[in-house]
Amino acid sequence: MLFIIGLGLGDCKDITVRGLEIIKKCDRVYLESYTSILTCGPEALEEFYDRKIIVADRDLVELGADQILEGADELDVALLVGGDPFSATTHTDLVLRAKEKGLQVEIVHNASILNAVGCCGLQLYNFGETISIPYWTDVWQPDSFFDKIIKNYKNKLHTLCLLDIKVKEPTYESLTKKKKEYMPPRFMTVSEASQQLVKILQNRAYQNDEYVTENSLCVGLARVGTKTQQIVACTLQEMCKADLGGPLHSLVVTGPVVHPLELEYLKQFMSGSDFNASFD
Amino acid sequence: MLFIIGLGLGDCKDITVRGLEIIKKCDRVYLESYTSILTCGPEALEEFYDRKIIVADRDLVELGADQILEGADELDVALLVGGDPFSATTHTDLVLRAKEKGLQVEIVHNASILNAVGCCGLQLYNFGETISIPYWTDVWQPDSFFDKIIKNYKNKLHTLCLLDIKVKEPTYESLTKKKKEYMPPRFMTVSEASQQLVKILQNRAYQNDEYVTENSLCVGLARVGTKTQQIVACTLQEMCKADLGGPLHSLVVTGPVVHPLELEYLKQFMSGSDFNASFD
Repeated sequence: MLFIIGLGLGDCKDITVRGLEIIKKCDRVYLESYTSILTCGPEALEEFYDRKIIVADRDLVELGADQILEGADELDVALLVGGDPFSATTHTDLVLRAKEKGLQVEIVHNASILNAVGCCGLQLYNFGETISIPYWTDVWQPDSFFDKIIKNYKNKLHTLCLLDIKVKEPTYESLTKKKKEYMPPRFMTVSEASQQLVKILQNRAYQNDEYVTENSLCVGLARVGTKTQQIVACTLQEMCKADLGGPLHSLVVTGPVVHPLELEYLKQFMSGSDFNASFD
Repeated sequence: MLFIIGLGLGDCKDITVRGLEIIKKCDRVYLESYTSILTCGPEALEEFYDRKIIVADRDLVELGADQILEGADELDVALLVGGDPFSATTHTDLVLRAKEKGLQVEIVHNASILNAVGCCGLQLYNFGETISIPYWTDVWQPDSFFDKIIKNYKNKLHTLCLLDIKVKEPTYESLTKKKKEYMPPRFMTVSEASQQLVKILQNRAYQNDEYVTENSLCVGLARVGTKTQQIVACTLQEMCKADLGGPLHSLVVTGPVVHPLELEYLKQFMSGSDFNASFD
């Protein structure tokens, strides 16, 4: 049997009681290590679960399904993933592969940033399409995600921006080599994301108050659900300089209407920010 | 200190390890009983936690904040809620009230239908604004939520429809009386929700294939994350007759584009349904 178990937002103890029971009885336990970064490392998890876990990188999860599923007709195998199991496409693929092989599959859900973002006080109902902001390189600076922010804005909705994570990325130089070399892990901060957004604004010369501007109210969230969680509400311009510490970060670009109850809650995360008048 | 602890999708064991530890050490534990319905009742929770819990109805949570927070400067008080703590506005209100009183507040996140809906294979990225479908009465048949489904559709996004729950609703006759009488609890099924949607389609005479029609692909979900979870993918018309058993139900109206990977996953929940050609 295959179990896919969400680990929630980061701490060892964020696993559900049911998830923990399953992990303890499984024959093999893999930890997916690339779509989400836990605040506790594999060693801490091994100690907490009191059992060995196998760290699975992208290659293993995406290409090594046969290896993960080996013997799962008689054995119990678990794949642990940060957040909720269905936040990334690769896991639906693994489920389908398992079902093709006639294996039973059980999912253990958990919190993910997609619902936990509600902790900033913005209502989950008022969010539109979620977007991802990728790291730019010198030669690759996509900005199509910005159209989705504008679309949400026009629909009077907030946008949750998931920020890029680079884990086990081969260096450009080693791409053509047999032996890959990997760059150190990088996690986009709210300030880096905001700088890219401001750059796009400047490129597009959206300089009116009708849509998203440098004065739009944004919310930066770091390490949501952990003891060191930090939330800042300020303008996009101010967010470019905000320092929210270590990963993971997420950014919300609010829509044109922030409900009074949302605003009242957000106020605890503001410090003298100068927003568009429409937020007053 | 005030803790607001998400219980996840329904089973006692869906609580996180951290949430359970907190419950065991708290002086008073309230269970919010109206915005979400757990598959296990208060008695089962009391037995699982091995402690007494106080069932809190809407009046207590919305109007009795002082009562809940009494003594929480020295005592530890927990409010348990179905799903994630920030799925309903009332909890942000309680947090603000607690902070006004100078109390510390800690949130324990968990899964909610807003992220767990990914279990049907539709990508969470491709969802627009979430809507709620209320029970109609003879004299009150709102349909403004349908505009949001259309808006999502035009934006090529799926719509998650949360279905009405009526718990401890006073009868119409007792509204003006001193002693309220309550109706038996009701939970809207995917079939009831679909019937209301078809009624709206007929009222509005949207009978072209451009937007949502009776042949639109819908996904009905029941008891997500539990052992009796049931998912059905069929047309809106067919969903009117679908029987997915006991609560809670949720309905997804898909957008005009269902990605091949989404469709491949959805196929396991279909049985000879006849969709709009665009899904093939």
